[in-house]
Amino acid sequence: MGLVVQKYGGSSVADAEGIKRVAKRIVEAKKNGNQVVVVVSAMGDTTDELIDLAEQVSPMPAGREFDMLLTAGERISMALLAMAIKNLGHEAQSFTGSQAGVITDSVHNKARIIDVTPGRIRDSLDKGNIAIVAGFQGVSQDKKDITTLGRGGSDTTAVALAAALDAEVCEIYTDVDGVFTADPRVVKKAKKIDWISFEDMLELAASGSKVLLHRCVEYARRYNIPIHVRSSFSGLQGTWVSSEPIEQGDKKVEQAIISGVAHDTSEAKITVVGVPDKPGEAAAIFRTIADAEINIDMVVQNVSAAATGLTDISFTLPKTEGRRAIDALEKNRPGIGFDSLRYDDQIGKISLVGAGMKTNPGVTASFFEALSDAGVNIELISTSEIRISVVTRADDVPEAVRAVHSAFGLDSDTDEAVVYGGTGR
Amino acid sequence: MGLVVQKYGGSSVADAEGIKRVAKRIVEAKKNGNQVVVVVSAMGDTTDELIDLAEQVSPMPAGREFDMLLTAGERISMALLAMAIKNLGHEAQSFTGSQAGVITDSVHNKARIIDVTPGRIRDSLDKGNIAIVAGFQGVSQDKKDITTLGRGGSDTTAVALAAALDAEVCEIYTDVDGVFTADPRVVKKAKKIDWISFEDMLELAASGSKVLLHRCVEYARRYNIPIHVRSSFSGLQGTWVSSEPIEQGDKKVEQAIISGVAHDTSEAKITVVGVPDKPGEAAAIFRTIADAEINIDMVVQNVSAAATGLTDISFTLPKTEGRRAIDALEKNRPGIGFDSLRYDDQIGKISLVGAGMKTNPGVTASFFEALSDAGVNIELISTSEIRISVVTRADDVPEAVRAVHSAFGLDSDTDEAVVYGGTGR
Repeated sequence: MGLVVQKYGGSSVADAEGIKRVAKRIVEAKKNGNQVVVVVSAMGDTTDELIDLAEQVSPMPAGREFDMLLTAGERISMALLAMAIKNLGHEAQSFTGSQAGVITDSVHNKARIIDVTPGRIRDSLDKGNIAIVAGFQGVSQDKKDITTLGRGGSDTTAVALAAALDAEVCEIYTDVDGVFTADPRVVKKAKKIDWISFEDMLELAASGSKVLLHRCVEYARRYNIPIHVRSSFSGLQGTWVSSEPIEQGDKKVEQAIISGVAHDTSEAKITVVGVPDKPGEAAAIFRTIADAEINIDMVVQNVSAAATGLTDISFTLPKTEGRRAIDALEKNRPGIGFDSLRYDDQIGKISLVGAGMKTNPGVTASFFEALSDAGVNIELISTSEIRISVVTRADDVPEAVRAVHSAFGLDSDTDEAVVYGGTGR
Repeated sequence: MGLVVQKYGGSSVADAEGIKRVAKRIVEAKKNGNQVVVVVSAMGDTTDELIDLAEQVSPMPAGREFDMLLTAGERISMALLAMAIKNLGHEAQSFTGSQAGVITDSVHNKARIIDVTPGRIRDSLDKGNIAIVAGFQGVSQDKKDITTLGRGGSDTTAVALAAALDAEVCEIYTDVDGVFTADPRVVKKAKKIDWISFEDMLELAASGSKVLLHRCVEYARRYNIPIHVRSSFSGLQGTWVSSEPIEQGDKKVEQAIISGVAHDTSEAKITVVGVPDKPGEAAAIFRTIADAEINIDMVVQNVSAAATGLTDISFTLPKTEGRRAIDALEKNRPGIGFDSLRYDDQIGKISLVGAGMKTNPGVTASFFEALSDAGVNIELISTSEIRISVVTRADDVPEAVRAVHSAFGLDSDTDEAVVYGGTGR
């Protein structure tokens, strides 16, 4: 008998009907002879409504109390889900993050899981129950306070439990049929990917694909837990994310040369103008940024103009950190030494991801040709072994994504992508 | 420095404005030099909304999961209240029932507190924090499951914590100014009671007064914790419930002869007709009722008619238990032996409560005279040392209450009673 961990997002349990639909699906998995652990997010917009209430009573909600507040959301959805399952004649028990043994550090609002001790879950499964676990939450190791894991935290809860329970698979149910070769809202002919390696999925997640977050995939890779991303609405086979290609029927899914195209318009570009071209300058700039606890993405240093001995350094970072980065650099201007700062938040990033790049030297050239043919100007370039990313004008992004998707033969014959829920996760 | 436990009901924290108003009041108590522990109920109609959701997913919500669901309500209100207090520049920490050490038995939906171990609350107070505790909830001693205490449970949480922390007073904040000599919605001239003994308050609660529940007063009497019932809206002195009369200013409040008039229209009457008048018959009837775990209130056996050797036995019980009681009696009819059952849910109970009854023999006579003058017919009578109760037609109750209130000189000169919130508790 196998053990399956299933995770359902907020759009799958947005109302009583959704909860009953999900309950049926869970019971099916149980009837198929599996032990079933279910991780569930808060219903629909519950979390946003709680945040709104918090802002009404306090402009700066505090960490510990904010976490206490938000965790009420999963408490509601998990209890209702357990009731709906019992109503179908199966035994179910719900567990908070703390009861499920999700132990975290003490960083409120974005805690990290440091251990999972699922003794109560194991006991409940052994008694024949379906175990329902609140996603997104844990308890801090030192203070025993309730913590939350930050955005996408329920996926991480699911993968972490799957690892601790040695599950066969972690099924992530969402409102799309799986991971696509591009964002279906931008590329109508995007194809569902049957299988993708952890490595390619990590690059897609880092490049703006939102189906799975980077942290969750990283966790799954470390413990080698296969993830199956699929729709809670359609019941179709979705996308498998694992270390080795899966068997589907009698054929083995092959490693694709190119997994997909991702894009990201959530970043901004800062250019530090007129930096003396001498050792230690770049270090001074990025030490300043790092001290402000801001993560940067791409970095480019221009060739210095021989006449002046000055150069420009550009880097990209989340738009939400733009203000703080500018402030930090201005404050340290005397120490760093530069002429001026330019801030540009009208940029977009397009990334091509695929392990096949390593052995197909023509990929980079084809990528630039496709962009050029589409009349898209490139502002920055960055590459890894299995990814090429470029920064363009934000307005050019949709056209650029479609052009690259088509040039690499990723278009399907039909418009197959469907988004079911639509309330987000 | 004294320790004060304050309890705020759902109507006091119905929205963000209410939470901010309550936060100010709490901070005042802290500024007055007290250590402050606050017990809070779920916001306004939250609990009813959660019950509604539960009924949508399952017609018979299960005990354990139902408790898990309902406790989300206090989690939200307590976290928001802690945030609002922090926003006023004071430190506050919220605690679930489990974190606060409220240990109960395992009877879900109506658990009983068996111990309170408030170590974390004490630590938090010693660090100068205001401690906010979720009312109505605890954790079961044997299974470590979340439990709820049933209707009025937050008041019991407050009194239990006050006892465990050896508080000077337990302040119960509500949407009326205190305990009145009659229900202000029925008797406009009802007077606020300045002080009432535990014993009289217990009788009032048992007779239908809803300001404090019986269980909570019982707990307070056992541990001798003075309760101060008052409004969270007006800030006026309310009603003190304690073993000894309080001092107010330079005068000592005297024990009243009559504390008040209570009424209750939530009960029904069952008459078992044609019972053989021989030993063991009443026992057989009430064993049947007890085995069905139904609590009864008043019992009357008529004088038997000599010709037939048969008699009738009537008793009252909550309307909500009526169906089950009838079913249980019908099922055991062969064993008991009776002709028929009569069910009447159009009855009401009026009770006069006061320790002065013991030494004022005229009270009972005056009570019956007042009812007679008002043209109210009496169907059943029951008495204790400090209470007389009668059952009448439900329609007669308001007139009967006003007549008795007036006859015992309880009317105030003005219409002083105000109900502030109105959303119930």
